Amino acid sequence: MKALDKYNARVDAAGSLLCVGLDSDIGMIPAAFSADEWPQLAFNRAIIDASAPYASAYKFNMAFYEANGASGWRQLAASLEYLRQSQPDILTICDAKRGDIGNTSAAYARSIFDELGFDAVTLNPYLGRDALQPFLEYEGKACIILCRTSNPGSAEIQNLRLPQGPLWQVVAEMVVEEWNENGNCMLVAAATNPEDMTRIRAIAGDMTLLVPGIGAQGGDVDAVIRAGLNSAGRGLIINSSRGIIFADDPATAAASLRDAINACRDDLTLPSA
Amino acid sequence: MKALDKYNARVDAAGSLLCVGLDSDIGMIPAAFSADEWPQLAFNRAIIDASAPYASAYKFNMAFYEANGASGWRQLAASLEYLRQSQPDILTICDAKRGDIGNTSAAYARSIFDELGFDAVTLNPYLGRDALQPFLEYEGKACIILCRTSNPGSAEIQNLRLPQGPLWQVVAEMVVEEWNENGNCMLVAAATNPEDMTRIRAIAGDMTLLVPGIGAQGGDVDAVIRAGLNSAGRGLIINSSRGIIFADDPATAAASLRDAINACRDDLTLPSA
Repeated sequence: MKALDKYNARVDAAGSLLCVGLDSDIGMIPAAFSADEWPQLAFNRAIIDASAPYASAYKFNMAFYEANGASGWRQLAASLEYLRQSQPDILTICDAKRGDIGNTSAAYARSIFDELGFDAVTLNPYLGRDALQPFLEYEGKACIILCRTSNPGSAEIQNLRLPQGPLWQVVAEMVVEEWNENGNCMLVAAATNPEDMTRIRAIAGDMTLLVPGIGAQGGDVDAVIRAGLNSAGRGLIINSSRGIIFADDPATAAASLRDAINACRDDLTLPSA
Repeated sequence: MKALDKYNARVDAAGSLLCVGLDSDIGMIPAAFSADEWPQLAFNRAIIDASAPYASAYKFNMAFYEANGASGWRQLAASLEYLRQSQPDILTICDAKRGDIGNTSAAYARSIFDELGFDAVTLNPYLGRDALQPFLEYEGKACIILCRTSNPGSAEIQNLRLPQGPLWQVVAEMVVEEWNENGNCMLVAAATNPEDMTRIRAIAGDMTLLVPGIGAQGGDVDAVIRAGLNSAGRGLIINSSRGIIFADDPATAAASLRDAINACRDDLTLPSA
């Protein structure tokens, strides 16, 4: 099954647009897990068990595993394997923001899609399409290309003004019109810039958007849903990382966010009485 | 010692601007090493031993180790450790092209600079300066920011035309004028675009440029030296990967390229008779 179809099926089955970000920084893992031989794996298993009923995707941020060296890499792979076994219907995203020349991108693609077995990966557009082509050729996987990111200084480069519009808009148009030949592209559109998300939705048609920036970074759920829902009432992968995994009660935090998203979604998609 | 000072001292001592790229793709490692328990490590040790007399830097391309999972990560770390022990004067570059939001970049920086212990890292500018700030704060390390890359389709985004010039030029100006507060920035300027390198040199003053694209990718040594040498007759880290490490005789390949670089350099910097 294609990554997009897998996600959409899960969204409908679970009634959720929520993605839980496993930014499992080893320095922030609660004491109950930090004494484990594999603390990141033990923590991730607990988070997955607690939050899976409310999640349609999990996003693994590679930095927090690489920071733990070969052990981190093994715990990443084992966490992903646990997730795939216990929750085979949930989309798995590798948040790696890769982008390199062709033969290097081919190695990254093998690593992320074949060796680790993720359904989707985040990619950086600065090197151009040919650099991402080895990823784009995996028709069944999803390639989620950075367009408008959630960091405070994201405008510095992304909002540079070209005659046809800001750089992020040009990137969105390129992805939608040219890079998406295999129908496997998605875009990153941050919750912290809902006005830009409205314009990205207008460019992207029904393309699915990965939305970072909710929660710790200040993005507003209602604004995201209004700006980003597609014509099928889906089209958004709304990520929260620290706000869920480091909450006192991750299950409740995930359920609350899922419910908040659905409340806004119902307002927009249900027929009024 | 700062990374830039380390590199310059080595350039003068070894008489070389050559960087050897350890793109040690496990599928391309010669049979003599592929039966080893740690084939990437065994291969890298042999390449380092053969090429070190002619090299002032080594660049490890992370993709080719990540493609080999936790084992690849361990072999990367062990190869770097071998290089640091056997050749402590040679600059070590992590070619990772990272760029992410702040807390994630901080984790990558810890991984690359503290855990692995590299002198330098390649970074992607698309997210803006604040995303790279955790790297930039390591004053003794070098942050090598993508400006003009060597892939065939690099112009697609990098040459997008803003009122003040192409995107790569705007990136170069930002790095030189704003991001380089700690004097630890460098730029990637591909050998495949020597005309653009001339303009990057004009913008960058004496800033050091990492130059991919020589050899297998078609860049011309003479054009690179003419375009890129700085006022001290240095300022270039000229990388060759496949053209050296997969040559029949890596030592001769490294010596030949070092000599070809120096012949062009002498033409430009020695007083004429």
